[in-house]
Order: sequence, then structure tokens, then C-alpha cells
Amino acid sequence: MITITVDLGERAYPIYIGSGLLGSAGLLDPHLRGRRALIVTNTTVGPLYEARVRAMVGGGRVESVVLPDGEAHKTLATMERILDALVAGRYGRDAVVIALGGGVVGDIAGFAAAVYQRGIEFIQVPTTLLSQVDSAVGGKTGVNHPGGKNMVGAFHQPICVVADAATLGTLPDRELAAGLAEVVKYGLIADAPFFAWLEEHAQALVARDAAALHHVIRRSCEVKADVVAGDEREQGRRALLNLGHTFGHAIENAMGYGEWLHGEAVGAGMAMAARFSQRLGWLAPADVARVEQLLRRMGLPVAAPRLDAEGFLAAMAADKKVLAGQVRLVLLRALGNACVTADYPAPALQAFVRDELAA
Amino acid sequence: MITITVDLGERAYPIYIGSGLLGSAGLLDPHLRGRRALIVTNTTVGPLYEARVRAMVGGGRVESVVLPDGEAHKTLATMERILDALVAGRYGRDAVVIALGGGVVGDIAGFAAAVYQRGIEFIQVPTTLLSQVDSAVGGKTGVNHPGGKNMVGAFHQPICVVADAATLGTLPDRELAAGLAEVVKYGLIADAPFFAWLEEHAQALVARDAAALHHVIRRSCEVKADVVAGDEREQGRRALLNLGHTFGHAIENAMGYGEWLHGEAVGAGMAMAARFSQRLGWLAPADVARVEQLLRRMGLPVAAPRLDAEGFLAAMAADKKVLAGQVRLVLLRALGNACVTADYPAPALQAFVRDELAA
Repeated sequence: MITITVDLGERAYPIYIGSGLLGSAGLLDPHLRGRRALIVTNTTVGPLYEARVRAMVGGGRVESVVLPDGEAHKTLATMERILDALVAGRYGRDAVVIALGGGVVGDIAGFAAAVYQRGIEFIQVPTTLLSQVDSAVGGKTGVNHPGGKNMVGAFHQPICVVADAATLGTLPDRELAAGLAEVVKYGLIADAPFFAWLEEHAQALVARDAAALHHVIRRSCEVKADVVAGDEREQGRRALLNLGHTFGHAIENAMGYGEWLHGEAVGAGMAMAARFSQRLGWLAPADVARVEQLLRRMGLPVAAPRLDAEGFLAAMAADKKVLAGQVRLVLLRALGNACVTADYPAPALQAFVRDELAA
Repeated sequence: MITITVDLGERAYPIYIGSGLLGSAGLLDPHLRGRRALIVTNTTVGPLYEARVRAMVGGGRVESVVLPDGEAHKTLATMERILDALVAGRYGRDAVVIALGGGVVGDIAGFAAAVYQRGIEFIQVPTTLLSQVDSAVGGKTGVNHPGGKNMVGAFHQPICVVADAATLGTLPDRELAAGLAEVVKYGLIADAPFFAWLEEHAQALVARDAAALHHVIRRSCEVKADVVAGDEREQGRRALLNLGHTFGHAIENAMGYGEWLHGEAVGAGMAMAARFSQRLGWLAPADVARVEQLLRRMGLPVAAPRLDAEGFLAAMAADKKVLAGQVRLVLLRALGNACVTADYPAPALQAFVRDELAA
């Protein structure tokens, strides 16, 4: 088992990475210290792994809340079901929420933990590659609003994360690819050698080679933990993690949440960010081609579907990354070197989006 | 104008206290710095003061959300109306929410600001004595759940507080008294000379003498700011501020929210805390009499109404102050000296509550 520490001072927490961690006796004991826990999972993951997590929580009655599966249920109303269970079960301020599932479960359950009695502790047990390399690390929690993705939420750090690579064996191909999109992102924003490593091991990753997956989870968590530790509240550098996300969120928003997986939209969004970087003269055409090729080999889309350009631009403008009316984008200056900027001509972005969506 | 600073490091903020502050040109400028603001108020306060706050926000279109008045509307559903307005108005992360009204408006609007895009800034403009001396200071925000008061919320500090004593001129007598309950609390938990000052000036306060009210707001904010600054997340000393609140919340819960004002329930709750302290041998009967007399002179109840004792005890057990199954209470060792404790015989509390409610 590998242990990485996310260094956030008094909110520092460990990420445990390995295979077969679920069910390990004793792993959670130092964190739970005998306190009550409420397991939050969904109808897909619960039947597969809930029993093992119950065994980890140990003696006594353990309650659970089983949510419907899917991004469409990432709403305040679903979050209230968790709050209702916490109130009905008379959980105190010392209770711990355990989020067992992918990013949606982690985001909703983490948000419920953030606001129940103004904040109780929670543990992330991510069971998808996406959540293991991304959403389980960094403390962003929240739900969607009909007017925008992740519009409501909180920064709330888990007390530990258990990333069991063995759970990826049952993951559908599309979801594996969606997770790999975020992995590619870490290479693009901060680690050119890792990007090159991914090019060499793309085949092994798609084939779910265990050693390759372990390396990917570890390196992704290290990069993300490093970025998050330096900027917990996303005032500056952490915004780099949004590479591909402003375009990606606009794709999800325009198509309706749930059509594409988040990671698929981010994949296409990163390719768009690379191409817009090229159009601004920042990124070489050969590098854009490398980005597109790697994404394709991982089974990811590299372009948005046909969508209405004006609606797409409006969705981008509604994104949280807007500062004083100008959309801040994460763009590439080279592979492994990204920057957050609003320093581009607004008409250039409009023309670019129209060209992309008409393609 | 008096300015007090709540010292919370990078989250430090000023409280402006005076008469006629609403409408003051320039007061908010250093805080708003030209950013967009959304005013949140209610149907009672809005018609009286919203225009003056709009004038303070200055040029440009200023939107507002007008909530129904009353504790019964302190719900997640009401909070969502603010989120809907923020999303519909495309407010960015740099927007500022201005809460104009009493504690309910401040708690709901502050919570909406805490979770919109995972946290935007907000300004408190409290217009009741209760909110000026209590809820506007300290950063507690939230809403009620059918299963308990303030069960859902966040710690979120305002960027400034404007406490205009002139707004108290239109406050109903009951609400003035409810605010004075919290004022008495500060004397009881931490400042015996202030308690004695209140005994001398009770008549002047009930008659709304301006100088007396200014002193009360200032000293209350100082005591609360001091306590909060030392313990922002309520791990320890801040819990002293809950004197009378565990009994008081149980009264509100058993009667149904909205029957008694929060401050009235806290008044009766403090008298109960004093009598339970006496029963445990901690507080002299003469001191209990002083507490009851001061509360009565301020127009506050000193006992709970007839309620079902078992339901009352269940409501106390559901309170957030429960740690490992034992209800922690704030009790008095002397006037001006309170402590948080679970170190009392549980049967003694049960017998005490039964005696009180049968009286």
C-alpha cells in the first residue's frame, strides 16, 4: 500500500492507494476512533462493495443511504436525503460520513458532511478511476443547479481517502476513459515527463494493466495534492486543474448533464483548449496533435458535438471561472506548462467556438 | 461611529456601530470595490431600509431578493430562492451578498453566500437588536431542518457588519426583549461588571435610550468577538455562547418554531440553566434570583411553558451539543463565570426537566 499525504496543515490527510484495500481490517480505525459512521453509496456500487466497507467500520449497527446512480441526481434534493438520514439517525457532530462510489457520490456526500451541523468529518472511498485521481482529492464538494454545474457546494477536506485499484475491474470502458482524461490533464498542466510516460503506456492503461494503473493513480494524486496544498481555496494556481473544464462544462450544459460523462467532456475540452492555444500562437501544431492522439488512444472524444454556438458561449460565460465579466481560461504554453488567463481577445474566443461547433 | 474588529487573521472583519449609518455614502465602498451585490431582505424590513442600502451600493443596477418574514421560512427551500437569483443573475465568484434584516435573513443569506460557487463574500446589515449583538457576529450561518434547529449550515464570516442602532426604533417590544436576552447572556458568561451595569440600566434599555443601546451593542460585540476570535470553529470556549440555548432550542422545538421568539426561548433557557446550576450546588440562590429578576425586567419569560417532558428531553438529546451521547450544557459557576460540561448525573437533568415542565 502506498500512502500519500495531502499537506494542508491542520487539515492534512492521507490517501491510501493499493489493490484489495476494501475490507482491510484496521485501515479506518485510526480515523473513526469508534465513532458512528453513515455510509453513502449508490445503487450500482452499493451491491458490489458496501458489505466490505461495513466490515471496515466494525462493530455495531452501521446505517447507509443508497442514492440513485448518475450525474442527473447530483442535486440539492438528493443531498437532502443524506441530511434527512443524519437527522433521523440523530448523528452528532462527531459522526463521520463515508462516501463510497464515484465522483457524484463523493461530491454529494462530502457536501452533506460539510453542511450537516455546520460540518462533520467524512471519508472518501472512490471506486472509479476519475474519482480516485481527481474528485476524491482536494476537498471540492457540491451539487449541480439547473443553471450550472457545481454551482452550489463547499470546500471540505476528507479525513482520509481509500483508493482501491481493484474496484476498477468492474468499471465500464467509457468510465475508465473518462478517468484517463483527468490523468492526461495532470501531465499537460504540470508534468511533461508524465505526459510522455502516458504516451508510452496508453495501450497498457486501456488494457487495465495493474502496475500501470497504480502508477497513474499515485502520480495523479501527487500532482493534484501538490497543486491543492499550495492553493486550497482556488485563489490562484489551483485553477490550473480546470484545464478543459470551462469548455467541458459548456459541452455538458448544452447537451444536458448525463449525455457525456464528465471526463469525456473534459477530454474534448482539453483538445479544444489546446487548439485555442494554438490559434493564439502559444502552442505548436505538433503538440496539439500529440494531445489529440493520446486522447483518441484512450478512447476519448477530441471535439464537441454539434451544438448551438451562442448557447455554448452563454454556458461558458455562466461558468464559475468568470471574473469581472471575462471568462478566464486555462490554456497551454507547452505540454506540461499551463496558465490561467483572461488575456485574449474576446472576439477570438467567439470565432473559435463558432468554428469548432460548425466543424 | 464605533468600529470593532473581529480578529480572525485573514478573515478579520470590522463591525461598524452607530446611529444613522444606513445610507452613509462611502461606508461600503472599501468592501465592495465596485463589485456586483445582491441584497437579500424580507417583506418587513425591505420597505423600511432597502432603498438606503441600494444607495450605499451605489451606481448601476442592484437586484434584491425579498424573502417572507419569520423563522418558519428559515429553510433550505428559502435558501434556494437566493441561489436561484444568483444563478439567474449570472453573479460571479466576486459578487457580494448583502443581508439586510434580522437573524433569520442573515443566517439564510449568509448560508447561501457560503455555498454559492463554494463561497462568495457577504455583508451583514442587521436591523434587530438580536442580530446586532449576536447573529451578525461570528460567522454562523444556516437553516432549520424539520428535525432540528440550525441543523444545516456553514461557518462563513462576513466581510463587514453595519449595526445601525437607528433601525431599532421600529422594532416591536418583544423583539427588543429577545435581543436583550442575548445581551444578558454576555454578562452571565464572561463579564460580571457588565451584568451589574445591565441591572442598573434595565429601565433605560426597555425605554430604548440611545446611549444605553449603543453601549450594549458595543460591549456585546466585544465579548462575542473576543470569544469567537479565540475559537472560530466552536471546538471549545465558543460553546459558552450557547448558554440557555440547549434548553431554549428544546422549547422552540417542542412548541414549534415561531411560537416564541428565539431570544424569548433563550431567556427562559438561561433561567433554567441558572436553576439547574443551583440544583447541582454551583450557583447561589441569590444569584439565580438576580438572573430571573433582570430577565423579567426586560420583559422576558423565565420558565418554559407546560410541555411534554419526554419530548423536551428528546429534543435536548437531538441538539448539536451532544458528544458521544451525553448532552453538554453551559452552566453557571457564578454570575460572569460559565462552563461547558457533560459532568453531571443524567438522572438529575431528567428530574430537573420534569419538575420544570410540571411547574
